[in-house]
Amino acid sequence: MAFLGRDYLLNNRSAKTLFEKIEKLPIVDAHNHADVKEIAANGNYKNPWQFLIGTDHYIWALMRKCSIDEHYITGSAQPREKWLKLAEVFPFMVGNPVYEWMHLELKRFLGIDALLDRSTGEKIWEETDSLLKKPEYKPQYLLDKLGVEVMCSSDDPVDLLDAHDRVNRDMGRIIVHPTWRADRIVKISSPDWPAYVRKLAERFDSRCSCLKDLSGILRRSHDYFAEHGCRASDHSMRVPFPCVAEEKQADRIFRSVFAGDSVQAEERDILADYIFSLLAGMDSEKNWVFQMHLGVVRDPRRSLFASFGPDAGCDVSDQSVDMLAPLREFLNRFDNRLKVVFYCLDFVYQATLATLSRSFGANVKLGAAWWFCDTPFGMKRQLEFISSVDLLYSFAGMVSDSRRILAYGSRFEMFRRVLSDVLGGMIEKGSMPEEIAFELAERMSYSAPKDFFAL
Amino acid sequence: MAFLGRDYLLNNRSAKTLFEKIEKLPIVDAHNHADVKEIAANGNYKNPWQFLIGTDHYIWALMRKCSIDEHYITGSAQPREKWLKLAEVFPFMVGNPVYEWMHLELKRFLGIDALLDRSTGEKIWEETDSLLKKPEYKPQYLLDKLGVEVMCSSDDPVDLLDAHDRVNRDMGRIIVHPTWRADRIVKISSPDWPAYVRKLAERFDSRCSCLKDLSGILRRSHDYFAEHGCRASDHSMRVPFPCVAEEKQADRIFRSVFAGDSVQAEERDILADYIFSLLAGMDSEKNWVFQMHLGVVRDPRRSLFASFGPDAGCDVSDQSVDMLAPLREFLNRFDNRLKVVFYCLDFVYQATLATLSRSFGANVKLGAAWWFCDTPFGMKRQLEFISSVDLLYSFAGMVSDSRRILAYGSRFEMFRRVLSDVLGGMIEKGSMPEEIAFELAERMSYSAPKDFFAL
Amino acid sequence: MAFLGRDYLLNNRSAKTLFEKIEKLPIVDAHNHADVKEIAANGNYKNPWQFLIGTDHYIWALMRKCSIDEHYITGSAQPREKWLKLAEVFPFMVGNPVYEWMHLELKRFLGIDALLDRSTGEKIWEETDSLLKKPEYKPQYLLDKLGVEVMCSSDDPVDLLDAHDRVNRDMGRIIVHPTWRADRIVKISSPDWPAYVRKLAERFDSRCSCLKDLSGILRRSHDYFAEHGCRASDHSMRVPFPCVAEEKQADRIFRSVFAGDSVQAEERDILADYIFSLLAGMDSEKNWVFQMHLGVVRDPRRSLFASFGPDAGCDVSDQSVDMLAPLREFLNRFDNRLKVVFYCLDFVYQATLATLSRSFGANVKLGAAWWFCDTPFGMKRQLEFISSVDLLYSFAGMVSDSRRILAYGSRFEMFRRVLSDVLGGMIEKGSMPEEIAFELAERMSYSAPKDFFAL
Repeated sequence: MAFLGRDYLLNNRSAKTLFEKIEKLPIVDAHNHADVKEIAANGNYKNPWQFLIGTDHYIWALMRKCSIDEHYITGSAQPREKWLKLAEVFPFMVGNPVYEWMHLELKRFLGIDALLDRSTGEKIWEETDSLLKKPEYKPQYLLDKLGVEVMCSSDDPVDLLDAHDRVNRDMGRIIVHPTWRADRIVKISSPDWPAYVRKLAERFDSRCSCLKDLSGILRRSHDYFAEHGCRASDHSMRVPFPCVAEEKQADRIFRSVFAGDSVQAEERDILADYIFSLLAGMDSEKNWVFQMHLGVVRDPRRSLFASFGPDAGCDVSDQSVDMLAPLREFLNRFDNRLKVVFYCLDFVYQATLATLSRSFGANVKLGAAWWFCDTPFGMKRQLEFISSVDLLYSFAGMVSDSRRILAYGSRFEMFRRVLSDVLGGMIEKGSMPEEIAFELAERMSYSAPKDFFAL
Repeated sequence: MAFLGRDYLLNNRSAKTLFEKIEKLPIVDAHNHADVKEIAANGNYKNPWQFLIGTDHYIWALMRKCSIDEHYITGSAQPREKWLKLAEVFPFMVGNPVYEWMHLELKRFLGIDALLDRSTGEKIWEETDSLLKKPEYKPQYLLDKLGVEVMCSSDDPVDLLDAHDRVNRDMGRIIVHPTWRADRIVKISSPDWPAYVRKLAERFDSRCSCLKDLSGILRRSHDYFAEHGCRASDHSMRVPFPCVAEEKQADRIFRSVFAGDSVQAEERDILADYIFSLLAGMDSEKNWVFQMHLGVVRDPRRSLFASFGPDAGCDVSDQSVDMLAPLREFLNRFDNRLKVVFYCLDFVYQATLATLSRSFGANVKLGAAWWFCDTPFGMKRQLEFISSVDLLYSFAGMVSDSRRILAYGSRFEMFRRVLSDVLGGMIEKGSMPEEIAFELAERMSYSAPKDFFAL
Repeated sequence: MAFLGRDYLLNNRSAKTLFEKIEKLPIVDAHNHADVKEIAANGNYKNPWQFLIGTDHYIWALMRKCSIDEHYITGSAQPREKWLKLAEVFPFMVGNPVYEWMHLELKRFLGIDALLDRSTGEKIWEETDSLLKKPEYKPQYLLDKLGVEVMCSSDDPVDLLDAHDRVNRDMGRIIVHPTWRADRIVKISSPDWPAYVRKLAERFDSRCSCLKDLSGILRRSHDYFAEHGCRASDHSMRVPFPCVAEEKQADRIFRSVFAGDSVQAEERDILADYIFSLLAGMDSEKNWVFQMHLGVVRDPRRSLFASFGPDAGCDVSDQSVDMLAPLREFLNRFDNRLKVVFYCLDFVYQATLATLSRSFGANVKLGAAWWFCDTPFGMKRQLEFISSVDLLYSFAGMVSDSRRILAYGSRFEMFRRVLSDVLGGMIEKGSMPEEIAFELAERMSYSAPKDFFAL
């Protein structure tokens, strides 16, 4: 079959029928890393590298794997040089979803059918570059073209959200909601932590000398986000916090850390756990969705961390975590009063998380296949677990998790095709009545996240 | 394809041929939770709820997931009200095996082809209710109709087994064997434990003041079960016991617990471990099958446990257990003298358990895909592991694990279809000679458990 | 379809086209257990048992599973008796890859189409036995016939390598490279360890009274292997060593062990960890490939170990290991200066290892599906992980891991068919452009290991 052709990922007749029905539904993307300031500015992209690669660490990681020097990845080489280096090794990435996403974006949104390689690199650069000069390739136009109805960006509690307001005003509809991404406030071990707390205090014209102060400041940020349409918080971690720490002990530790006293790792965990419970408590009050990205080990490669810093794209998953014990405490503490979504990096947790989701009722949901699982293979496996153990109907919805605008298109297309293939496969083998499959497909690809995230 | 049609779950020609050959084989169900007293009484079922849902916590769990109030699940609402609530949300369960089982039961055994939903709920209730008034829907008739040749119920060591005798006498053949389900005797942490031990002692007209007494009482129960045709014991746990505790220490702990002294968790584990080795030792002497249900965490949701108690259907699996270390001790201790079956809740243990089964010879077998794995997807994965690592020929056999009589039919049909599909798939890709596949299919779906459990 | 027919394992048209292209490529087998002395002697095999079964513990394990007495497996029964016992139970092994390998070998290399069972056992024995008397079934002829271009055996650091030289001279090309398999030197807990160290010292005419001495001796062995064409070392373990121990402490422990003093398990681990870092350091200097076989628990069944000793074929996998923490240390320590291949016994580690491979650049690769994963099902799953997370292009290559010569043929055929099926499946669903799939297939089945191992 033709690469990325009409029946791409659709292995049966029912899949094709389903996909035709959901293909054009608007995109609801409840978790991404949109550069909202860039969208608000709505200028032309500078060049194809910035547009297609510059912010995408999925591609950086694979370039390193193909022995490309960092100079041509995140270094100071010219964008065009970087692009040509990528073109040389791009055929070696075949089989990885990055290969499909890139070509989906070239084909579907830039009208370029060629495969990217050494022989086509220059031509694709030129074609893309000239398109990017046109007004219809400015961010706001692209969001319309891609059919993005609404999406949630990821923002730090210290951030100002005026760019969000501008985008929504300029586009004449609420297209972007902020998300309260509070990772830094629980990363007590970071040397920057006290400075971050001070910055947060300043942002809200407060002083912060005890945990009660911090709690108040966090609440002001939370309220500020709520006023700007926030519907969810987001939290990334290796091991979940159980939320069992007591205030008095946590406050004592807070004062020690703030005073610069030496503090044990276990004590830092207690403080983080307590703060985490504050965050969840505020989400519970406002009926926000508490999103947990579980199982990630950040920055394992020291040479890269030393030269580049965090978020270089070299994070790894870890199958050895006990997820159940802390999640069980957490879910019991907030039972019946907090909307939760699990995103999971390693497939080994899928049964544990699916059974927890099944057990804790309609508030607790499994989210989209995340990062290393965000592939046709990973999505399919995850849908099979949701289907077998939990309920497809209760799925929290696809999210792009991306910073790049075109990625919203390519990733939702991939998901909708895999979803159609899985549901179509169930119809074909007599496990699902055709007459109710479309409603399910529509819900899973559009209305489920709209309802759950109140978008 | 038609939902649950002739080729349901059968993806290739060879699968269809195989299924035709094994479809009508009698059912041998070596582990279920039959209500033997109800079967002995052989009265008409009271209503469709009692008949199809009342005892099925698989369905309860999904009703909760669909936000149905507990009042309409296990609460005091009228059966008909409960049924209509279920009907409203039943379409949302599509994709989960519960959806297939229910419709298989309606279609195959009640002659009802409609899909259960808001619009059909009343009609299906009426139709089912009128069928249940007929004599051919009494339990003993149904067992005949379903083709149940023989099955093993789950019974507590304190239980009387006269209902088993009555059923076998009334039906004119040994259709039901008891199983010695000894979970309560190793659950030392339960506040009811001393009372349970006393009850057991009373049941066998004994006194129990030391571990030797307990051992004697357990043996009497074991002998009593043997006299009533018992062929197996059954044990459910999160982490297996290694069976390495010593009698003297265990006896000392026993006396402390019994005296109401405070005892450490580690000490309780030692006592439980010792008792567990007594159980296995007795099974070894009588050549019973020792069934282990591994990896389950019971009652994780406190709100539900507080209001409902155990077995509410909200149990979860846990991927973080070290299965190998204790199982290795256990298997070595009883090497070559105990028949063992592993049932496993979380797929992450499949390789570990399959290699253990492979290593410890013909006595150690992998059992049916259990609970959250008892789905077309889970069964297929499990058969692939058994096939790749261990031997299909050595499979312990499908079990329904259910309390509901119709479930014996729907679950065995699902299994036999998946089995036919997997073996048929191997034939179609040239991995299995067609001429020996039927014998294998017959063995796996009928004679293997008959032989191994001596039924 | 016919068992092992033309389209065996090839489920689609593209798979068939790909397989036609790679089927006849020469075999590059970077890790096996060839009996190089036997190949050098190049005599006729004594009988079919020695030729097909005698050294294959995969088959031994399944014979035990079928209740064959050890007398007829590794015991003193006559080879012909053993063969006939195997024939009786061989149909029960259907579904396991052993069943396919055996029949592939009979069919492809001995021209025997019959299925091995009770009725054909004698005839197949006679036919095979008479073939083995012919010169074209001597080892060196067979290696040519199988298309083995080059392979790496597994050798102990004390071993002499003159048989390797003889084979290469006799065959007129470098067909066999040794591999430095240094497991015994890190197994400090073995009672034989001091004797082994003395043997190693003697072999290189040295004395060994401190860790520096040992380091020097290991280097001489390493140099000696290099002179004889070695390109890689190989290491098998349950938990990887992090390589963080310090020399001074390790030296102190070395002296204690050597003096026969009692030493804690933790201390032995420190010494082993230090020695392990010496091994990796030498590989780094010579640009060898450091192969890690991870997750294996050796000899879990005591009865078998007591009667037979190690390598009886009853090893198991263990899903409870923390792979990430030690591997992360190890990979950081040798970052950018050591070629590493991971072979993994349990599928639960696949995501963790794939993300590590992805993160640590072109030097770190995932290797062939190992042992219990070396099946169509396991290979497919592993290729899906490599494809989704890491890069197919970066795969380290198929290895036979076998001692038996015919196994090189059957296992590479199975792999190439599965590879063609996976890549062909991606073409068929539009995920891979047909025009670049052949180059990828060629690389993965032939040139990738040649390049990486410098063969």
